[in-house]
Amino acid sequence: MNVNGKPTRGIWHEGAPARVRIIDQRWLPHRFETTDLATVDQVIKAIQVMAVRGAPLIGATGAYGVYVALRNVNECKDLNAHIREQCRAIAEARPTAVNLAWAVNEVEKRIAGEKGLEQKTRAALEAASGIADAEADRCRAIGRHGLPLIREIFERVQRPVNILTHCNAGWLACVDVGTATAPIYAAHEAGIPVHVWVDETRPLNQGARLTAWELLQQGVPHTVVVDNAGGHLMQKGQVDMCIVGSDRTTTTGDVANKIGTYLKALAARDNNIPFYAALPSSTIDWQIDDGNMIPVEERNPDEVRQVFGTDGVCLTEVLVAPEKSPALNPAFDVTPSRLVTGLITERGVCPADALSIKKLFPEKF
Amino acid sequence: MNVNGKPTRGIWHEGAPARVRIIDQRWLPHRFETTDLATVDQVIKAIQVMAVRGAPLIGATGAYGVYVALRNVNECKDLNAHIREQCRAIAEARPTAVNLAWAVNEVEKRIAGEKGLEQKTRAALEAASGIADAEADRCRAIGRHGLPLIREIFERVQRPVNILTHCNAGWLACVDVGTATAPIYAAHEAGIPVHVWVDETRPLNQGARLTAWELLQQGVPHTVVVDNAGGHLMQKGQVDMCIVGSDRTTTTGDVANKIGTYLKALAARDNNIPFYAALPSSTIDWQIDDGNMIPVEERNPDEVRQVFGTDGVCLTEVLVAPEKSPALNPAFDVTPSRLVTGLITERGVCPADALSIKKLFPEKF
Repeated sequence: MNVNGKPTRGIWHEGAPARVRIIDQRWLPHRFETTDLATVDQVIKAIQVMAVRGAPLIGATGAYGVYVALRNVNECKDLNAHIREQCRAIAEARPTAVNLAWAVNEVEKRIAGEKGLEQKTRAALEAASGIADAEADRCRAIGRHGLPLIREIFERVQRPVNILTHCNAGWLACVDVGTATAPIYAAHEAGIPVHVWVDETRPLNQGARLTAWELLQQGVPHTVVVDNAGGHLMQKGQVDMCIVGSDRTTTTGDVANKIGTYLKALAARDNNIPFYAALPSSTIDWQIDDGNMIPVEERNPDEVRQVFGTDGVCLTEVLVAPEKSPALNPAFDVTPSRLVTGLITERGVCPADALSIKKLFPEKF
Repeated sequence: MNVNGKPTRGIWHEGAPARVRIIDQRWLPHRFETTDLATVDQVIKAIQVMAVRGAPLIGATGAYGVYVALRNVNECKDLNAHIREQCRAIAEARPTAVNLAWAVNEVEKRIAGEKGLEQKTRAALEAASGIADAEADRCRAIGRHGLPLIREIFERVQRPVNILTHCNAGWLACVDVGTATAPIYAAHEAGIPVHVWVDETRPLNQGARLTAWELLQQGVPHTVVVDNAGGHLMQKGQVDMCIVGSDRTTTTGDVANKIGTYLKALAARDNNIPFYAALPSSTIDWQIDDGNMIPVEERNPDEVRQVFGTDGVCLTEVLVAPEKSPALNPAFDVTPSRLVTGLITERGVCPADALSIKKLFPEKF
């Protein structure tokens, strides 16, 4: 998608030998900064501090991480064991999104057949680049499949369609296009008027910082609200549909996503508003059929106590709560499938239940 | 309640002629600052910028405001008309809490019978002081009536009782003791172990700033969480009950309270967790039987875009969202009575329905 009118992705490679580059999303919207991931430590740190975030982008970064690991091999007795160890470290950088382990594993499988460091390195780059491209393609397909849902509402209400989204499941989270934003961008491009309610998404404010910035860059009308406001907006008839992303989805349609998603799903149900999760199949955990089994990351409580922004001169963090008050910071919650109207995937829209998911992805069972 | 071990109220008067003093709550928890309200403009501004906030405290401040108005009368042709005008201005400083208009009206009624400025001024001070005392008494009664609800849970679970609260309905909101916090403080004093989940309560973070500070000052165990986290905590069995305050309650038990309350009530219902609103009868609007009729204040969108805190040196605001992104800032939402387990009032606990409220306050009908 566009940054100041120039097509940009969340991760890419350039030059020869190829350098892996990312947007350091921590400084957005106040500063647009790109950086190299030159070592495995940098890859892991970028994922952990959330310089890159969002399940599909974390996956693509992990995939590129295998390439970075191979590029940094000097001498080692057992190349395969060394790479395996590095891959495990990358795959475990964050626990909730299933894409990370999946993508690292895909690249590992791809390089296993190659002999020698050079061939493995080349194959890893190809595989990582392929995963990034495939994520972008899946997002575009999600956009195509989600577009009719928005069009149908527009034809009924004949005014801009009000869509609430939580966190950032935009192109910044997904290499390109985005998941939750894909149908929104598709509708905007198709001339269907949309307006997006952007949940700020505490504690890290990915909605206020990233989704709002993305939508501004693409010229999509939007309004930032605090996470508390969505229920009230729904009560007042100001939300026509919700679309969120997912960090991990079970085979039964339970949706792990940014903390607070569950609350919006409850409000949508209480007000008869359709609630969709948009996700590429790379986000589905084919091994899990119960959302309670999804590990929920607990992050540093300082993310709760503090808020990051600009004071007009510097980028800085301010402490909001008393220094001595403890805080807890669960990063995700799980929305049970009964609250999810449908999943918007790259193969189409389906109800959030085991049978429908199996019908759409029969080869996974 | 105590500040650094010293008994303190949210508003009080001292000296002769009496000066009206408040805690300027905008700077808490980082700075404890008290200030005089010497003019009606200062009274109105203190309410509007939320130097004082919380329905009962706004009411008490409005009541003292009538006294301040009388003290500032120099010469005027028609004293009664002048006072009436000043009272209207104070009563309209904020729209949602019903206590403000109620308390101003109470003082107006009280001074109407008095002849001459001096008598009216003395009567206004007495009335305002009486309203503040009565609010504190009502809060203590709420504590007595709410205590058994916590005790009952403790006797069942035999571990600290986990109570989630939203915003600040503590003593800072209520002259003294608090509404939602009253049963909590009563339980703590009675030796029942409690642990409070403190919703930070964006946009103005009254939970993280004020409730956490209050609980720290009284030594009550607590943990600050973002507003998004409550649903997840309830799903995980980490919340035994919710207690919130109210800015206006209908005769049918619909509860207007800080934005986001409705979302927590939905989650409590979905997880079979009791959800109580603690409120003095001064918060009940005897004229309204439908929550949709309660006016919801829309505040400055900059409160959404910005966050206030300390950077370690200065108290400052940081901008979180893109400068060009619009924001919307509804300050309250209405939780329908069907989601409210009960109302904890100064006369006892009752189900949130018209008949039960009428039984408890027959003289109001």
